[in-house]
Amino acid sequence: MAEETEWPGVENDIDDPEELQVIYRTLDSYQQYAKVAHFQCTHLRRQAFYALPQAHWQRLAAPPFNYLDTLDKIDDAIGSNADLAHLIVKTGLQMFHVGAQSETGEPRMPPQWNDSAKPNDIDKARSTLRQFYRDWSAEGARERAACFGPVMRAIAAEQEARRPTDPPLKILVPGAGLGRLVFELCLGGYEVEGNEISYHQLLASSYILNCCERAGKHTVYPWIHTFSNHKTRANHLRGYAIPDIHCATELARAEQTRPIGKMSMSAADFLCLYSQEDRAAAYDVVASVFFLDTAPNLIRYLDTIFHCLKPGGVLVNIGPLLWHFENRVYERDDTEDGEGHGGADTSGIADPGNFELTDDEVMELVRQTGFEMVSREAGIDAPYILDMESMLQTVYKASAWVARKPATAGVA
Amino acid sequence: MAEETEWPGVENDIDDPEELQVIYRTLDSYQQYAKVAHFQCTHLRRQAFYALPQAHWQRLAAPPFNYLDTLDKIDDAIGSNADLAHLIVKTGLQMFHVGAQSETGEPRMPPQWNDSAKPNDIDKARSTLRQFYRDWSAEGARERAACFGPVMRAIAAEQEARRPTDPPLKILVPGAGLGRLVFELCLGGYEVEGNEISYHQLLASSYILNCCERAGKHTVYPWIHTFSNHKTRANHLRGYAIPDIHCATELARAEQTRPIGKMSMSAADFLCLYSQEDRAAAYDVVASVFFLDTAPNLIRYLDTIFHCLKPGGVLVNIGPLLWHFENRVYERDDTEDGEGHGGADTSGIADPGNFELTDDEVMELVRQTGFEMVSREAGIDAPYILDMESMLQTVYKASAWVARKPATAGVA
Repeated sequence: MAEETEWPGVENDIDDPEELQVIYRTLDSYQQYAKVAHFQCTHLRRQAFYALPQAHWQRLAAPPFNYLDTLDKIDDAIGSNADLAHLIVKTGLQMFHVGAQSETGEPRMPPQWNDSAKPNDIDKARSTLRQFYRDWSAEGARERAACFGPVMRAIAAEQEARRPTDPPLKILVPGAGLGRLVFELCLGGYEVEGNEISYHQLLASSYILNCCERAGKHTVYPWIHTFSNHKTRANHLRGYAIPDIHCATELARAEQTRPIGKMSMSAADFLCLYSQEDRAAAYDVVASVFFLDTAPNLIRYLDTIFHCLKPGGVLVNIGPLLWHFENRVYERDDTEDGEGHGGADTSGIADPGNFELTDDEVMELVRQTGFEMVSREAGIDAPYILDMESMLQTVYKASAWVARKPATAGVA
Repeated sequence: MAEETEWPGVENDIDDPEELQVIYRTLDSYQQYAKVAHFQCTHLRRQAFYALPQAHWQRLAAPPFNYLDTLDKIDDAIGSNADLAHLIVKTGLQMFHVGAQSETGEPRMPPQWNDSAKPNDIDKARSTLRQFYRDWSAEGARERAACFGPVMRAIAAEQEARRPTDPPLKILVPGAGLGRLVFELCLGGYEVEGNEISYHQLLASSYILNCCERAGKHTVYPWIHTFSNHKTRANHLRGYAIPDIHCATELARAEQTRPIGKMSMSAADFLCLYSQEDRAAAYDVVASVFFLDTAPNLIRYLDTIFHCLKPGGVLVNIGPLLWHFENRVYERDDTEDGEGHGGADTSGIADPGNFELTDDEVMELVRQTGFEMVSREAGIDAPYILDMESMLQTVYKASAWVARKPATAGVA
């Protein structure tokens, strides 16, 4: 664990058998996406359809409903999502040097790992594929602006406050997800390090940032997995070109006009890696977007952030408080969530114990940790993979705030 | 099944053993609410809390967090919700004459049915208790106005279009839930019949409409079951007095100034009861609120509504399209959902087959059924048991429309 990998040129040979298991299960879950989605979205629906009285299904199969055509289109859309999933698997096998050699020379999953993914893993593969809408489509720009906007502005203000000769801010983005914020900050000239524990996210972000050949190579269909609350079938079946930009092209273009930054990614448990001594006072900014509520133990998250910030550095946060560990049972089954990356001896996210605070209690804990509040804004409309045309609108009212580690901290 | 019961004075002796089982399991689920809620909301959280490092839990136990006090308050709130649950059980035992005699003379559950409720039943008990916020608190008026408002106005317009000497409209409310719309329509002078298949709803509505002694007798705490997305602890712990009005008092008061209507309730599968011959052309209005998407087979719902409307009568609908049977597996396990009221031979909601349409496809099916569209409005903000102070806002964009059965229909 805690491997740090520069982009591009990931060269990880994983030795840890537990780690390998997590990677294979994750890869397998992407591989299985299509099969499971076809089963759940169309196979079961065809069964349910033909179980109707014959006169009924015949009426629905006819215009203007064309229900069976709809199911065929859903199958096609699943296929398109699966094309992306397959390339994530392929590049993942190459990245980690864990593929078996096939006759065509293409890397493929070692057969013993086929079907190793648990339903929970496959759910994550599906939701990660949907997440490309948010992070890497033109239409997702609205969602990104809501969350990245306040963070980018706070970081720009922080840079402005420095001397013009000062180097670019060094920024840590924990919970980097599909890497869009890391990329945008790099484009903005900052030195940025992403951190992510989930191999679902790591594999997907690595593909889109480093390996995807061109803008618009894929079409993702984020709304096809549910049939409820759609106004029209056209909206249900709406696909989005991703990525909206080709990262390498974009960076090269930017470089013509201004210095761009550096980016790297660490595949690790945030708590384990960034509480280490060599990360003390290492970053000017920690940019936390929809991240704090992934904490089972927010005290440790905040202590770790405080530890790795330079004196005078800032924690820039935005998010709601959807506590990810809210329903974790204390003695949880290790096999259920493959993203632990380690085990009970890691002092990481898998540590026992959790609690959930309210927004004002979080602010109090931030102060108790030693931060000084710089600014705070509440009630920011922040949709998350929201179909704006749906008859069901789910929107977070996010809190955004900036907290500073005092310049005197750690000096004594 | 298909018993019709006038309020007040429910006198049902149930003979069908399957029906009895459903009733007992439902009663038991209300009885078990407190135990399960204490376990899930506070017992597991205390375990998770003390599993934290000692220095951490001690900090959180101290002001200003007082985390353990919060858990105590949650236990009290569960207790208050459970008071309501217990009275629902007590009046249910009396209503159906199914209680065992206890030494105090109070009816109690026959002991062999204790712990017969499945987790799914207990979830329904909890969500029904929360639903009192929507249907029977003063603060829920906003949610009710959003959904009942368009329906009441369409019905009033329908009454206005009649001759002044015509009798009040006869209205059927399928999916009557906790009975608030039925009550409001009765108060408005209409002759109204509710229909409901769920004993969770039937028991709860019967209690609040017929047995609850006074306005504000209970306090329900709808937000305590989840710890996520709260701005403040005060909001998390907010309780609401229910009912906001005492039904009998309200009806008596209204009667002083104007003629009020009649109300009744049928406990039955809508499809079975209202497709019968004696219900042909029986109602002036079918008022369908968040009901159509409970259909596994919307064709049968619409045919049944068409059948039981008088020629010239109207279907007044409002709702989103959250298809309740979307994830039903075709060969479903009978024991999983206790609300079937019958079995495979009923030609009711438990019939095999289901499908999900989009909003515009629903409109097409309504026309195909033989209705004439009178009016249609889309995108109506319709929250459903929404904590307006939460950092997560979920709001339906409902469709409301009125469709008329042609005056010439069925005349030929």
